[in-house]
Amino acid sequence: MKDLSIGAKLRELTDLKTDLHNRDFLLTWEHTPAELRSILLTAQCLRGLYDSGRSVRTFDTGLAVSIFRDQSTRTRFSFASAASALGLSVSDLDETKSQIAHGETVRETAVMIAFLAEAVGIRDDIYIGEGNRYMREFAAALQEGYEEGVLGRRPAVINLQCDLDHPTQTMADLLHLESRFGGLDGLRGRKFVISWAYSPSYGKPLSVPQGLIGLLPRFGMDVTLAHPEGYDLLPEVIDLAGRQAAAGGGRFRVSHDLAEAFDGAEIVYPKSWAPMPVARQRTELLRKSDRAGLQALEKEGLAENARHASWQCDEALMKRTAGGAALYMHCLPADISGVSCERGEVSQGVFERYRLETYREAAWKPFVIAAMIYLTRVPDAPAALRRLVESEIPRIR
Amino acid sequence: MKDLSIGAKLRELTDLKTDLHNRDFLLTWEHTPAELRSILLTAQCLRGLYDSGRSVRTFDTGLAVSIFRDQSTRTRFSFASAASALGLSVSDLDETKSQIAHGETVRETAVMIAFLAEAVGIRDDIYIGEGNRYMREFAAALQEGYEEGVLGRRPAVINLQCDLDHPTQTMADLLHLESRFGGLDGLRGRKFVISWAYSPSYGKPLSVPQGLIGLLPRFGMDVTLAHPEGYDLLPEVIDLAGRQAAAGGGRFRVSHDLAEAFDGAEIVYPKSWAPMPVARQRTELLRKSDRAGLQALEKEGLAENARHASWQCDEALMKRTAGGAALYMHCLPADISGVSCERGEVSQGVFERYRLETYREAAWKPFVIAAMIYLTRVPDAPAALRRLVESEIPRIR
Amino acid sequence: MKDLSIGAKLRELTDLKTDLHNRDFLLTWEHTPAELRSILLTAQCLRGLYDSGRSVRTFDTGLAVSIFRDQSTRTRFSFASAASALGLSVSDLDETKSQIAHGETVRETAVMIAFLAEAVGIRDDIYIGEGNRYMREFAAALQEGYEEGVLGRRPAVINLQCDLDHPTQTMADLLHLESRFGGLDGLRGRKFVISWAYSPSYGKPLSVPQGLIGLLPRFGMDVTLAHPEGYDLLPEVIDLAGRQAAAGGGRFRVSHDLAEAFDGAEIVYPKSWAPMPVARQRTELLRKSDRAGLQALEKEGLAENARHASWQCDEALMKRTAGGAALYMHCLPADISGVSCERGEVSQGVFERYRLETYREAAWKPFVIAAMIYLTRVPDAPAALRRLVESEIPRIR
Repeated sequence: MKDLSIGAKLRELTDLKTDLHNRDFLLTWEHTPAELRSILLTAQCLRGLYDSGRSVRTFDTGLAVSIFRDQSTRTRFSFASAASALGLSVSDLDETKSQIAHGETVRETAVMIAFLAEAVGIRDDIYIGEGNRYMREFAAALQEGYEEGVLGRRPAVINLQCDLDHPTQTMADLLHLESRFGGLDGLRGRKFVISWAYSPSYGKPLSVPQGLIGLLPRFGMDVTLAHPEGYDLLPEVIDLAGRQAAAGGGRFRVSHDLAEAFDGAEIVYPKSWAPMPVARQRTELLRKSDRAGLQALEKEGLAENARHASWQCDEALMKRTAGGAALYMHCLPADISGVSCERGEVSQGVFERYRLETYREAAWKPFVIAAMIYLTRVPDAPAALRRLVESEIPRIR
Repeated sequence: MKDLSIGAKLRELTDLKTDLHNRDFLLTWEHTPAELRSILLTAQCLRGLYDSGRSVRTFDTGLAVSIFRDQSTRTRFSFASAASALGLSVSDLDETKSQIAHGETVRETAVMIAFLAEAVGIRDDIYIGEGNRYMREFAAALQEGYEEGVLGRRPAVINLQCDLDHPTQTMADLLHLESRFGGLDGLRGRKFVISWAYSPSYGKPLSVPQGLIGLLPRFGMDVTLAHPEGYDLLPEVIDLAGRQAAAGGGRFRVSHDLAEAFDGAEIVYPKSWAPMPVARQRTELLRKSDRAGLQALEKEGLAENARHASWQCDEALMKRTAGGAALYMHCLPADISGVSCERGEVSQGVFERYRLETYREAAWKPFVIAAMIYLTRVPDAPAALRRLVESEIPRIR
Repeated sequence: MKDLSIGAKLRELTDLKTDLHNRDFLLTWEHTPAELRSILLTAQCLRGLYDSGRSVRTFDTGLAVSIFRDQSTRTRFSFASAASALGLSVSDLDETKSQIAHGETVRETAVMIAFLAEAVGIRDDIYIGEGNRYMREFAAALQEGYEEGVLGRRPAVINLQCDLDHPTQTMADLLHLESRFGGLDGLRGRKFVISWAYSPSYGKPLSVPQGLIGLLPRFGMDVTLAHPEGYDLLPEVIDLAGRQAAAGGGRFRVSHDLAEAFDGAEIVYPKSWAPMPVARQRTELLRKSDRAGLQALEKEGLAENARHASWQCDEALMKRTAGGAALYMHCLPADISGVSCERGEVSQGVFERYRLETYREAAWKPFVIAAMIYLTRVPDAPAALRRLVESEIPRIR
């Protein structure tokens, strides 16, 4: 990426006249297309600078807090990378170590960790109806603390995956698509399939498929959601996807026939998730700490999965796509047949052919997170970004 | 807070002519009133700069090490925030992960983690007679390492709570009091009650009440320590409080009658702690890893607590205070009746009315810690702080 | 250390014309003597600057990733200290928290954590035949990611101890020797004994003794490896040590008589390790998760150790060394008789006399790691180091 390109991105960003300052990033569908474009452009600028050896340090000091209520390697490192690139120190709120286990309220914790913080990244994707709600409660407490003068600034809450959406993933996916199809305009009318895929594991979040159908139709894509009967996503997100398609000039439909869905597809994203009714039941059982119930549900869930073991992305299926050469995407890690499991979401041959592409897809995530922090925390971000570009500070002295 | 105010604070700090360089901060009562004032002034300057968007980075690089031998959320984040604000990276010595469990001596560990460190924050509050002793042993090893040329500098040990004192908490409390009563002089003669309060939990440290009675009488406050018979604090700290009152023009007395103690009080700080004899017994049992003994002691301790369930800060009690409007304080988290427990230290109504005040009280802690690191590590700190103020470096570029 | 001395080191470094840029540091014996000298010189320069109060910050931002697959305090803090001094943020890949336990491949993980990383420090010393192999697989994945344009730079892998070598330790040892014997040339012909020593623990890695015999003969030292029959090191490293001695003008021999080995020694390094055949068996049993087998092997290993309890470095043994005053060295923590165990590697009196010397030995490690990161990551490192020296930026503002 050349400076020339960064210059053009900067001008586009300035012209958008969006203002995300002092806001959170919790769901892509709460933001206007212009706001989403701002994030994409900022991510591209930051990456262009970083990869050309320039510093993107923006904060002389400050804290970025991460809260992971579910396991994570990728997102954890993406958040730490983004924070570090901008000059923030990461502190992880490890709830097993803290007194939160002792009955502290979310409200209090939010303020206590945020006295010098700029951003709080939260992953909370296990309970249906809970994760996003927790983030909002957290953000409301920060807002109160800021308005009441307890906090000297309003830290941004960044959704690192919840029960509804996984915006840092899907925005990285969108940047990958943009780079592969010659810009956002190149995505209009493209056939994109997000399909359920078989996995020997159970209970994966719904946030990635929901996030994709909530985002891509807004950029004019022709999106098919394919899954076996019963593997429904949350009905409100399905409704939303339809409305987004209508507003954005895209299409959205649901199919229960994997082969048919793949016919002529230009991009495929086969990925396992828990059926929404099962996810709901699981939430109830987890709340009651009903171990026996959870074990029974898992057994049942795995048996149900096994009935759809043919939902695997293999060479035969890929042959049906446009020119037999659709772009394969995945948020990683994939369940690869014969590699990470006996039989999984994708055959070894297909995955290996697109392995480096999935790495390129993932490479955008740190810059998406950095862009979200940048735009929510830096006043008059386009002007600040211009100063950063012009300062030409090398990252290595 | 205006620059004008920072300028006045700076002049006052310079005039105090204190020198904390290359020292530790382990107990407030080891420091002169002028030294304590230096910390308060430095904390106010750093906060004033930070909240007005200026950078307070003081170290270009360097390490701040934290050692938490007990759970912590607030103090952990306060320490990380302070270190980050000053430009230090935090490394946590997690003793379960390290070889310390394998018989390493404190002496060796202290040096091994400190080769590039500026400050070591330690919380060790579980064992009576142990926590502060451990910090001194640690500090002595750092001193030896420095004098023998092993360490290139003398890292400061900062007490983040021990069996005797909790100086970063009580100094934050003092700053909160100062801001509420128009300066330190405004505290003279004010009626302050630190009282035991009922809690369904057991074994809370003695460090906060001990720290308060060891500190506040020195600033002329009229301090009452109220608790049921048997819930004594360490006798040496009780003696000290009396001497401090005499020397500082304050008052100190002990009461076993909660209502009487609250009569006319201007500030109340109701908080649970373990009776000192129980804390001593517990230390012995923990040393012997006597699980059965510990369980029996806990049962006994909770039963004893239950006999004093009426020691709760409720509306009726608050009505007895000066104008029925004493300032309520707490180090958090509080046991709030009907919120975090069935019945606890404070009624829901009282707590909610003062909730934001307790947040404001806590907000000082990161800056108190930063001030302690600043004054112990920066040579000629007042001059350095003046340079920092005059540099006017923005925290966000 | 004066600036004058730093100037001389800088000139020597420049004249060596080595180039470690974009490489890893996995084994000392993969590097030329000139490359090793470059690291020693860079470590000395960085330490000289740091200890004279100058900043050695080199990266404006960036990530240093640590992966500890075995316990560590010293090396963990040395790595964190080195990274912090150079301006990098440390992120630890804690494999118990991550999804790696769920079947992720090393290849993918390597890339996912490295998007913004400069260096990855790895400790993996438990399995014979595995640790160094793992590091190479990791490095190969980073290389692929870099060549394929997934990663914007090629992070360096730094070996923080494997089954073969412990280069950051042995290079620190070499710097300690250099400082005690008037430069590297002062080491030629010096009698150095690395001996097995009794320990009540079991299964310590072979990497330190292997690393020492693989390194010191290259600098002309007269190295004796002493151990009881059966406590062999890996045969390939023994062979290598002989070849290194021949090429470097040093000597290397094996002795099974501790007293004889100590006769006239100028430096002694008594340290326990697991017999290589036991280490191999242990690797097999660990792979099979054979708990019963592991317990039986441990019992057997400890019984075998007990037959050699006389292999302790005590006053009588020290009397046999040159002038009765050989330099005692240890990588710490040592098993000290009567201190950390009933009977161990070294008597209390001997250890206490050399305790501060072992601290001085350890003090080099952060700077060795910093030098490895510096030389592998900074283009034209000697010129950059010269700029750093000339910039005279104070570490405390």
